[in-house]
Amino acid sequence: MHFMSDNTAGIAPEILNAIARVNDGREASYGNDKTTERLTLKFKEVFEKEVFVFPVTTGTAANALSIATLTPPYGAVFCHEGAHIHVDECGAPEFYSGAKLVPVPGQHGKITVNGLSAALDHFQLGFVHHVQPATVSITQATELGTAYAPHEIKALSDLAKARGLKLHMDGSRFANAVAGGLYSPAELTWKSGVDVLSFGATKNGAMAAEAVIFFDKSLLKDFPYREKRAGHLPAKMRFISAQLEAMLDDGLWLKLAGKANAMATKLAQGLEALPGVAVVHPTQANEVFFSLPNHDIRKRLEAKGAKFYVWSPPGIPEPLVRLVCSFATETSEVDAMLAAVRSSL
Amino acid sequence: MHFMSDNTAGIAPEILNAIARVNDGREASYGNDKTTERLTLKFKEVFEKEVFVFPVTTGTAANALSIATLTPPYGAVFCHEGAHIHVDECGAPEFYSGAKLVPVPGQHGKITVNGLSAALDHFQLGFVHHVQPATVSITQATELGTAYAPHEIKALSDLAKARGLKLHMDGSRFANAVAGGLYSPAELTWKSGVDVLSFGATKNGAMAAEAVIFFDKSLLKDFPYREKRAGHLPAKMRFISAQLEAMLDDGLWLKLAGKANAMATKLAQGLEALPGVAVVHPTQANEVFFSLPNHDIRKRLEAKGAKFYVWSPPGIPEPLVRLVCSFATETSEVDAMLAAVRSSL
Amino acid sequence: MHFMSDNTAGIAPEILNAIARVNDGREASYGNDKTTERLTLKFKEVFEKEVFVFPVTTGTAANALSIATLTPPYGAVFCHEGAHIHVDECGAPEFYSGAKLVPVPGQHGKITVNGLSAALDHFQLGFVHHVQPATVSITQATELGTAYAPHEIKALSDLAKARGLKLHMDGSRFANAVAGGLYSPAELTWKSGVDVLSFGATKNGAMAAEAVIFFDKSLLKDFPYREKRAGHLPAKMRFISAQLEAMLDDGLWLKLAGKANAMATKLAQGLEALPGVAVVHPTQANEVFFSLPNHDIRKRLEAKGAKFYVWSPPGIPEPLVRLVCSFATETSEVDAMLAAVRSSL
Amino acid sequence: MHFMSDNTAGIAPEILNAIARVNDGREASYGNDKTTERLTLKFKEVFEKEVFVFPVTTGTAANALSIATLTPPYGAVFCHEGAHIHVDECGAPEFYSGAKLVPVPGQHGKITVNGLSAALDHFQLGFVHHVQPATVSITQATELGTAYAPHEIKALSDLAKARGLKLHMDGSRFANAVAGGLYSPAELTWKSGVDVLSFGATKNGAMAAEAVIFFDKSLLKDFPYREKRAGHLPAKMRFISAQLEAMLDDGLWLKLAGKANAMATKLAQGLEALPGVAVVHPTQANEVFFSLPNHDIRKRLEAKGAKFYVWSPPGIPEPLVRLVCSFATETSEVDAMLAAVRSSL
Repeated sequence: MHFMSDNTAGIAPEILNAIARVNDGREASYGNDKTTERLTLKFKEVFEKEVFVFPVTTGTAANALSIATLTPPYGAVFCHEGAHIHVDECGAPEFYSGAKLVPVPGQHGKITVNGLSAALDHFQLGFVHHVQPATVSITQATELGTAYAPHEIKALSDLAKARGLKLHMDGSRFANAVAGGLYSPAELTWKSGVDVLSFGATKNGAMAAEAVIFFDKSLLKDFPYREKRAGHLPAKMRFISAQLEAMLDDGLWLKLAGKANAMATKLAQGLEALPGVAVVHPTQANEVFFSLPNHDIRKRLEAKGAKFYVWSPPGIPEPLVRLVCSFATETSEVDAMLAAVRSSL
Repeated sequence: MHFMSDNTAGIAPEILNAIARVNDGREASYGNDKTTERLTLKFKEVFEKEVFVFPVTTGTAANALSIATLTPPYGAVFCHEGAHIHVDECGAPEFYSGAKLVPVPGQHGKITVNGLSAALDHFQLGFVHHVQPATVSITQATELGTAYAPHEIKALSDLAKARGLKLHMDGSRFANAVAGGLYSPAELTWKSGVDVLSFGATKNGAMAAEAVIFFDKSLLKDFPYREKRAGHLPAKMRFISAQLEAMLDDGLWLKLAGKANAMATKLAQGLEALPGVAVVHPTQANEVFFSLPNHDIRKRLEAKGAKFYVWSPPGIPEPLVRLVCSFATETSEVDAMLAAVRSSL
Repeated sequence: MHFMSDNTAGIAPEILNAIARVNDGREASYGNDKTTERLTLKFKEVFEKEVFVFPVTTGTAANALSIATLTPPYGAVFCHEGAHIHVDECGAPEFYSGAKLVPVPGQHGKITVNGLSAALDHFQLGFVHHVQPATVSITQATELGTAYAPHEIKALSDLAKARGLKLHMDGSRFANAVAGGLYSPAELTWKSGVDVLSFGATKNGAMAAEAVIFFDKSLLKDFPYREKRAGHLPAKMRFISAQLEAMLDDGLWLKLAGKANAMATKLAQGLEALPGVAVVHPTQANEVFFSLPNHDIRKRLEAKGAKFYVWSPPGIPEPLVRLVCSFATETSEVDAMLAAVRSSL
Repeated sequence: MHFMSDNTAGIAPEILNAIARVNDGREASYGNDKTTERLTLKFKEVFEKEVFVFPVTTGTAANALSIATLTPPYGAVFCHEGAHIHVDECGAPEFYSGAKLVPVPGQHGKITVNGLSAALDHFQLGFVHHVQPATVSITQATELGTAYAPHEIKALSDLAKARGLKLHMDGSRFANAVAGGLYSPAELTWKSGVDVLSFGATKNGAMAAEAVIFFDKSLLKDFPYREKRAGHLPAKMRFISAQLEAMLDDGLWLKLAGKANAMATKLAQGLEALPGVAVVHPTQANEVFFSLPNHDIRKRLEAKGAKFYVWSPPGIPEPLVRLVCSFATETSEVDAMLAAVRSSL
């Protein structure tokens, strides 16, 4: 019953095979290899548009590099108050960019036009005493297991663009948002105004592979220097790119994320049927957050071997239980977890 | 005939197998896994001392994080004028630390006590107008294919320590220096005064794995925060650690590096026998640098399919040919290269 | 009727005379002069303790340098959500330190133990994913014209120290807080746990002079390098120190601040007597904030030549009028302002 | 006999009067005042061109802010190996910009087209492993008391521009270079390709006043944010601007610098007439550097009360005596110094 994080799973077999498959002969290093070249074409198909792709090994790197490219040192980055970039990256976006992160409250891990607008209103454009609004960063799927619909993204983007800001999407769990099947990758990104996407694969079954994807060439100008200067240009890039390529092949990314989502949905449905248990956020990806009638139950669950995080994001009165499913989560584990909760009540 | 870089080779089979071997079940992420725990013990054996080990994915990250941990923002880092950290990392050490790199000249890629002493003399301790000497960084094996002997390291360390500086070793090719068989890992590091080592594995047959190794616990204090903040704490750390563990198992690292060194030695010996060809640096690792009677020969070599870099480090009057061997270099390639040079003269 | 800011006043005559008085002969530069030496002794008397004094020319420099000295790059600085360091310094503390500022809400511009405690609870000590709480910064007098009592400072300090944080005080208007006459400089600082004070003089009648004052020698270690590296070590330091010395001579600083405070009190009392006008923060320094029955009145005031800022700090539903008095504010100006409000209602 | 630095002199009476003269009534703060407005017009006259002027209080601030505005974090700044920005600002340009400073050797404190060209050749444009050449910074008058002629500046500028670099001039002693009377301010700056000038006044008799002058509006874009963010936007700016305005009024800056230069020339001529004494750099500004027959003479000079620095810049075999004259240096002091040297031989 391991629901701590989707980071605790291993490598999907298809990904591991892909690494082995490109391990043949010599290849130009630092991204000048054929696998990386093919990868860009693959992403172009997936997003129905010319894109500019930079594989890196961690999500924090993808986010911090993206934000630093979009934001001047005296800039402000607006994100949800519970965003990973704000609370769980030890200040990486600030280190890379120099900018200030401005937390925006919002239900279910999402920021809204009203919330963003109110936050923006505290900053006076052209007033040298204020940091200057430069970037909005949203997470898709969010840290609370919900997902933005295209019209929500578009509304945020419209506001951002009207004020001269760029829109970044932390897609560490982008696959989980797309696997819902309602919207295409294009609809959830550039068609809704996203300028740069951190495309995650590690949580979804890769070993260590994420990609920064620019939808607008004019924005990426000095990204390669920032990437190298940060030590995030892997020498044997082909093996990072191969992981991403395998993800996109035959829709593996959506198959793996779909599996994780299905497990989360099953968990949520099971939990909601239990007396006194409340699932507090819509389960739209691979995470379930729920409250329990009392705290002792958590201890009983842990005693039964269940592994999970207790979640206390800003603005939440009482701690929640967070369960994260991955491509490796099995139905039997879900059943065991539900049984454990039931018998602990 | 591919001698561009040891970065162009793939993954050694033992390393790939090790990745597959730890791909089983769930594991705590971010380095709290059993493989990483075992790895520290392995390194302890190799270095005959308690050590503190942080696996990362690139050599630039290992160097920049090490240097930033040892050096205050107003500090100075002394290194060879041709050091990778100075010329080939796009300013990563400066980005991470804020400090100034001070290039020191020296024959065959090595700095000497005299050279270091002269460089240090330009800085007045406690004088706020000067950046303050904090760290010496040497490369082992050097960028020119030579290696420091323990007494040379010790002499630099003694000077550094007498002035209050720490000693960092960029060991991107540390295995090649040790594979010579003359000195132990301990003798080449902490026994000679090295405080922190960037232990390289990627160039030696790993996929993406290096380790920062502290020999003194009191120095590593805030390293973990710097690492996370830089996006260099891989989520699925076990797969990085597994590469390093496989390297150390049964001396694989020395077997692979020994192979590369042997190929380089064979190349050097073959080249030296050719009229007008001069190998300009002692071949003590896996790189060979040589001059040719005239530049047209280089073009003829390229026309024959030989792949290599032309090297023009500071202070060198005429460009050299650099040939780098790796664990994957075969005797047949060396023979072909020698034949190509011979027939191009 | 000029109530925009205390920054719009000129130089008090005693200060200008002091600059002229030290303009005699040659003096060692960069702070090695006799005036700066005397200044430290003067501050020692004022604070009844050995102190370490660094004169600088702007309040932003004083704050940013102090905070950077107390806070590591991966640190968090807790301050009021309306603090000058957070909203009006264009990210200077972040630039100098690399750290993240965490805004804490609180009535009347002050943070409370409860507010600080709640903010601290979001950060897990030793958890590398979180920036690490390092510093609390409070403003005295606050941006809303109120002042902390020693027991309030002590309570914040006790909490800060219990969690390993240092306490910084932005004393850009410290004189105004002391001029109230209730507490001594010592009681308002080190006796209540303040580690470092930005002592302001510019707003109080100096030309360009602030001082960073350390109450604990062990904390200032690398301050001088940070100061020089930031271009904040004036060459002809004696002229900056002379301004501060003149401030402390014969209690000039309290005489000037007392005058400003008295004018603010008179304004506040006059405003409170007017129907529909509400002074919304206690007037404990040289600033008055009040609401008006309707917004048209503001326009009528401006039409009559009154100069002031409209204030909309975070969490305040409707804009306020802010009036700031300085040492140069005359009773006639206060009377004219009150008459202008009265006739505009 | 005080020849330590031009920083040890006080404030010229005309400058002090100017400070007093603008100390009247209230004025908008942070540079929105009438004095600063007038100053820009004055500089326009002096440079015969529209210019964009930012007064700051230190030369280090002027240089570091200029360089950070011209240079990306992954950029390289080329300067003389003895340049103040490289050796005497504790890494301020690196702190502000993130960039790497590349020292260029050259006789008499000047870099040449050949030296710059050789330095540039080590960097490959568009190669992400190399920091990217962005800015050339020259000092006028140089740290060794010499001055560039317009054709020398033009030649450096032509090379810089051809490679896409900008040209910064550290004019901490610009007045001394202009006071020679051979070339106009315009000829020595924008007409010869200078993009940004740090215009010094402090060493020339101001209290604390320098100006960053942009000759091209398109280059200054985010300068005001950088300035504020660094704490270098003085609140009561009128008093900084007044110092600069007084400098430009009736050519005071050239009168003061001319006096200092004349004293240096007199010193140099006197020294050259002495047996065994060698003035080693042309005396083209207000500094004289000379060698003595033996080191004991220095001690005898100090014993006689002479104050000076011993100078050991990189590349100089034996220490020199540096004498700096200022507007306050009197003929009697020069005579006394010459007599002291004569009687010490």
